[in-house]
Amino acid sequence: MSSERAGHPVTMREVAEAAGVSIATVSYVLNDKRGARIGPEARERVLAAVQQLGYRPNALAKTLSSGSSNFIGLVADAIATTPFAGQIIHGAQDEAWKHGFVLLVANTEGDAAAEEAAISMMLEHKVRGILYSTWYHRAVTAPVALQETEYVLVDCFDPGMPAPAVVPDEVAGGYAATRMLLDAGHSRIAFVNTTTPSPARSGRLAGYRRALGEAGLEFDESLVLSAQPEQQGGYAATDALLALRTTAVFCHNDRVAMGLYDGLRERGLSIPGDIAVVGFDNQEVIAAHLRPPLSTVALPHYELGAAGVRVLLGLEAAPATKPLHISCPPVPRESI
Amino acid sequence: MSSERAGHPVTMREVAEAAGVSIATVSYVLNDKRGARIGPEARERVLAAVQQLGYRPNALAKTLSSGSSNFIGLVADAIATTPFAGQIIHGAQDEAWKHGFVLLVANTEGDAAAEEAAISMMLEHKVRGILYSTWYHRAVTAPVALQETEYVLVDCFDPGMPAPAVVPDEVAGGYAATRMLLDAGHSRIAFVNTTTPSPARSGRLAGYRRALGEAGLEFDESLVLSAQPEQQGGYAATDALLALRTTAVFCHNDRVAMGLYDGLRERGLSIPGDIAVVGFDNQEVIAAHLRPPLSTVALPHYELGAAGVRVLLGLEAAPATKPLHISCPPVPRESI
Repeated sequence: MSSERAGHPVTMREVAEAAGVSIATVSYVLNDKRGARIGPEARERVLAAVQQLGYRPNALAKTLSSGSSNFIGLVADAIATTPFAGQIIHGAQDEAWKHGFVLLVANTEGDAAAEEAAISMMLEHKVRGILYSTWYHRAVTAPVALQETEYVLVDCFDPGMPAPAVVPDEVAGGYAATRMLLDAGHSRIAFVNTTTPSPARSGRLAGYRRALGEAGLEFDESLVLSAQPEQQGGYAATDALLALRTTAVFCHNDRVAMGLYDGLRERGLSIPGDIAVVGFDNQEVIAAHLRPPLSTVALPHYELGAAGVRVLLGLEAAPATKPLHISCPPVPRESI
Repeated sequence: MSSERAGHPVTMREVAEAAGVSIATVSYVLNDKRGARIGPEARERVLAAVQQLGYRPNALAKTLSSGSSNFIGLVADAIATTPFAGQIIHGAQDEAWKHGFVLLVANTEGDAAAEEAAISMMLEHKVRGILYSTWYHRAVTAPVALQETEYVLVDCFDPGMPAPAVVPDEVAGGYAATRMLLDAGHSRIAFVNTTTPSPARSGRLAGYRRALGEAGLEFDESLVLSAQPEQQGGYAATDALLALRTTAVFCHNDRVAMGLYDGLRERGLSIPGDIAVVGFDNQEVIAAHLRPPLSTVALPHYELGAAGVRVLLGLEAAPATKPLHISCPPVPRESI
């Protein structure tokens, strides 16, 4: 691309000349200054010249004079290594734009030096504030540099710091998943939970227990299995699950369900005829396309990003002492 | 987050006072101005004060005085609706950072008004240039507003405009996929291509033909099937594929292969024992976790983003009359 083609940027002086007014008049019109007496005719000539010449006001100059920019920073540990984090960005960006802000995104792969560099860059660009987000729900120690501006933790929380945080409601999600199976008439329901300690593990288990309790069923610890939270873990859990003789199973996530599908199929069992399966996450490329399509519960990534921006801008309040919980809606398909 | 906690930003004046020098001296030291005679001792005092007070130079002020910013814009049609686009962002960001630039990302969902707003915002922020990217390889009509700056098309190209473009080498990818099957001893190889006209459809087919030709095998049009480019399409193609009595099949993408796995399994066939399968895309959450794990060819999204930045910055040349092609490397697993 040659810079000749791009041409030189149109200046405010050229707009003034084309409109036959002073530079000050152009500035008043473009900055919508109250109190400046500009006749409607002059205003129209300025706007016509802006249009015709393709003049673009300088957002950076405005930022300098106002002291803060229209940027919101998003520091993410892994945009790219998971299809999940993308939806956080999407929701944050849509919400930011709605309020006249632009999202500055930095992917750090969780590296502390990259995080520091990203936050430093954002502070130098006078961001309105920073969203610090993780690709899965977990406890973090928020970088100290965040304290130089306003910030909100998204999909994570800092147990050592009363900072605003927005996280998925794992308990309500586990409840919704179990509820779908109860509503379909199942009363002996296994839960293949993850081996990894996390808010998802404890929260989804609590939701499972709450749903059973509400339905008047006793919690039976022997019905809770542990598996690596991916396809191989689900596949490996097949025999242990079948030994429990349940009619339904709630899987920690869709990947575990995908592996379990393989294990059940190899043993000649049908879903949901022989056993009903529900997942968690609503990872679309898996859940919507398994045979049969998987009933699951959605992680609200888009909403997490959007709510993070609203909390940052003071448009939504987060509780002072705990994270704001975003609901995980059930997504019924054909595996129940 | 209260603004009290954030405190007021440290000013250059405070740095000057702490260091016992003039504001001009602080500015000279921080902007690394040649020609300014600053003694090493004064320089050290300034840097110590900057460190101690946590002073942050104002990137926007630098931008204003130099006329262009350290931003590179990335306009993407769908960051979030596909796990692919994320890697383009990741590669572009890593490469941008390497050269001192920051990526400004805008997700437009392909909406023309959103694209115009995003480009306009980027121009107002005096970006060094813009990457215009799509989540799958296709022909586009690049927005006219791009011509106000330097730009590079990423994962797309504009047939009506000789603009720099970076795209995956579909032909070499189709060749690599077929080659893996040939190398394993197969000579009767089916190709389940997509029904959708695209550079991927024609390019992968050309690569398949080239590999067969090089191996001295005649191209047999009847071995090429068409399917919707997703799981359901692969599943539905199972009987037609089996009727061809091939020992191997190259699938247009990993999703088609995933559906075909289901169809083959239901008919009691084993992979690769009864039929060898190779995919395309290397969509990790599928390809690495099918049973058996799927041999495939990777779409080089990370490299597309990185190469786009290099072309934009003039660090790598793109051919004048056609896109720069990025290779699609084979990813052997266990389905061959």
